[in-house]
Amino acid sequence: MDYKQLFDQIHKKRSFLCVGLDSDIEKIPQFLRQNIHPILDFNKAIIDATAPYTVAYKLNTAFYEVLGYEGWIQLQSTINYISFTYPDILIIIDSKRGDIGNTCNQYAKAFFEVMDVDAVTVNPYMGKDSVEPFLKYKDKWTIILALTSNNSSEDLQTLHLEENGLLVFDHILSLATNEWGATPENSMFVVGATHAETLEFIRDIVPDHFLLIPGIGTQGGSLEDVAKYGITRKCGLIVNNSRGIIFASNEKDFPKVAREKAEEMQKKMEIILQKYGII
Amino acid sequence: MDYKQLFDQIHKKRSFLCVGLDSDIEKIPQFLRQNIHPILDFNKAIIDATAPYTVAYKLNTAFYEVLGYEGWIQLQSTINYISFTYPDILIIIDSKRGDIGNTCNQYAKAFFEVMDVDAVTVNPYMGKDSVEPFLKYKDKWTIILALTSNNSSEDLQTLHLEENGLLVFDHILSLATNEWGATPENSMFVVGATHAETLEFIRDIVPDHFLLIPGIGTQGGSLEDVAKYGITRKCGLIVNNSRGIIFASNEKDFPKVAREKAEEMQKKMEIILQKYGII
Repeated sequence: MDYKQLFDQIHKKRSFLCVGLDSDIEKIPQFLRQNIHPILDFNKAIIDATAPYTVAYKLNTAFYEVLGYEGWIQLQSTINYISFTYPDILIIIDSKRGDIGNTCNQYAKAFFEVMDVDAVTVNPYMGKDSVEPFLKYKDKWTIILALTSNNSSEDLQTLHLEENGLLVFDHILSLATNEWGATPENSMFVVGATHAETLEFIRDIVPDHFLLIPGIGTQGGSLEDVAKYGITRKCGLIVNNSRGIIFASNEKDFPKVAREKAEEMQKKMEIILQKYGII
Repeated sequence: MDYKQLFDQIHKKRSFLCVGLDSDIEKIPQFLRQNIHPILDFNKAIIDATAPYTVAYKLNTAFYEVLGYEGWIQLQSTINYISFTYPDILIIIDSKRGDIGNTCNQYAKAFFEVMDVDAVTVNPYMGKDSVEPFLKYKDKWTIILALTSNNSSEDLQTLHLEENGLLVFDHILSLATNEWGATPENSMFVVGATHAETLEFIRDIVPDHFLLIPGIGTQGGSLEDVAKYGITRKCGLIVNNSRGIIFASNEKDFPKVAREKAEEMQKKMEIILQKYGII
């Protein structure tokens, strides 16, 4: 899915919502847990309920790896289900991988070819070698961590570098766009909603890139602030919500409640898209 | 496996070698590739051949994830094989994971409980939240990336921070040991052999921690230099070699050649351990 197709989806659905399928086996409804593939069944129900309001699904590998190879089967099956049933929805694998080039070639192949998702999150700590193997896939999206939503992002990401006076996350944004080949067509950046005001400053460096924004909901970020400081003429935002939607109920009515929560977010997003003249 | 047990193994085997099972399906011998579990069969042959010279095996998840769930099965089966057959050998999963705390709880459980390895590599870009869930496992090893072996480690890791004048990797070492609870008993750090002289400086900050050293062999690092600048009275080094051992031959004699290469490294290590009065 390219930039234009992504924007078309946002326009059509009047939404920039990503639903995070952090499908923790200990948090899904009790009655599903005895199924053969409980996570897959849970995901399919959530996907069918939320697809009309959603432009992307994000699957975090941690919640699948914790189930061993059985988890990996349910991860791949969920991806296949989305691809076949809702081919217009962007599929993000939230894996935050990063390694030497030789190894990242394997990760890029694992996710972009074998698993066949549209987008992968990557960690820039190891520099260019670790990100380039993903960026080489021009028809896929490499989503680079910049400023994450967690409190301890301050341990490193918001410190200043002597060499250029830049904040660490700002340095990553600059390197990625100026030297690593991260264009608005092949890449996005992760910026936590908990740093909404910083988005204004980030937009000076990456005015056109899509940003993947976690941290709304459970982590405390505000959708209105994210839009105020980060929205572009092509929206440029994909806002993730995981636990606030998928675990809104853990009774039999969980798909219905997830749908309501997703629709609620879509309605807020529609107002924002109208307010900023995007739709 | 605790600090003492690890040192006992080093003492007994007169070696601080880790063999990296980066078992790339496209590089293993052709005649194995039609097997049902080619990577597992390859790994078992390599393990049986090299175990007498080896104190650790390191499995990089990338080379398994590229095979989908089938890869995950062979990864787990390899780990089970090592655990049962060579229980005294340290098993490292080289996954370089890092995420928000809620997610890293799942990764820690996935690797330390479900997969049941001894050690996991983690990426510190997201700070304390992302490392603590691993460090909580007191009887396991959390191996934190500090200064990696690849060229582009210079993109971030070797820059200076204005706030404290420290290099980024040095800041990570300091934070981890002073604030995150990374002790010599529950943690190690990754330092690439390609930065051997820097080890002297690193030893000022972490005099007692074990360091996991990749980058010998294909990547160009020198074993003698690593020992010169990094060795401690309890050795404090685990030196990894992957491609130089496991792919030394891709004919039928591959286990024999791998054994010779591993033994060759063990002999060099024995001389080093004697030279520094450790054995």
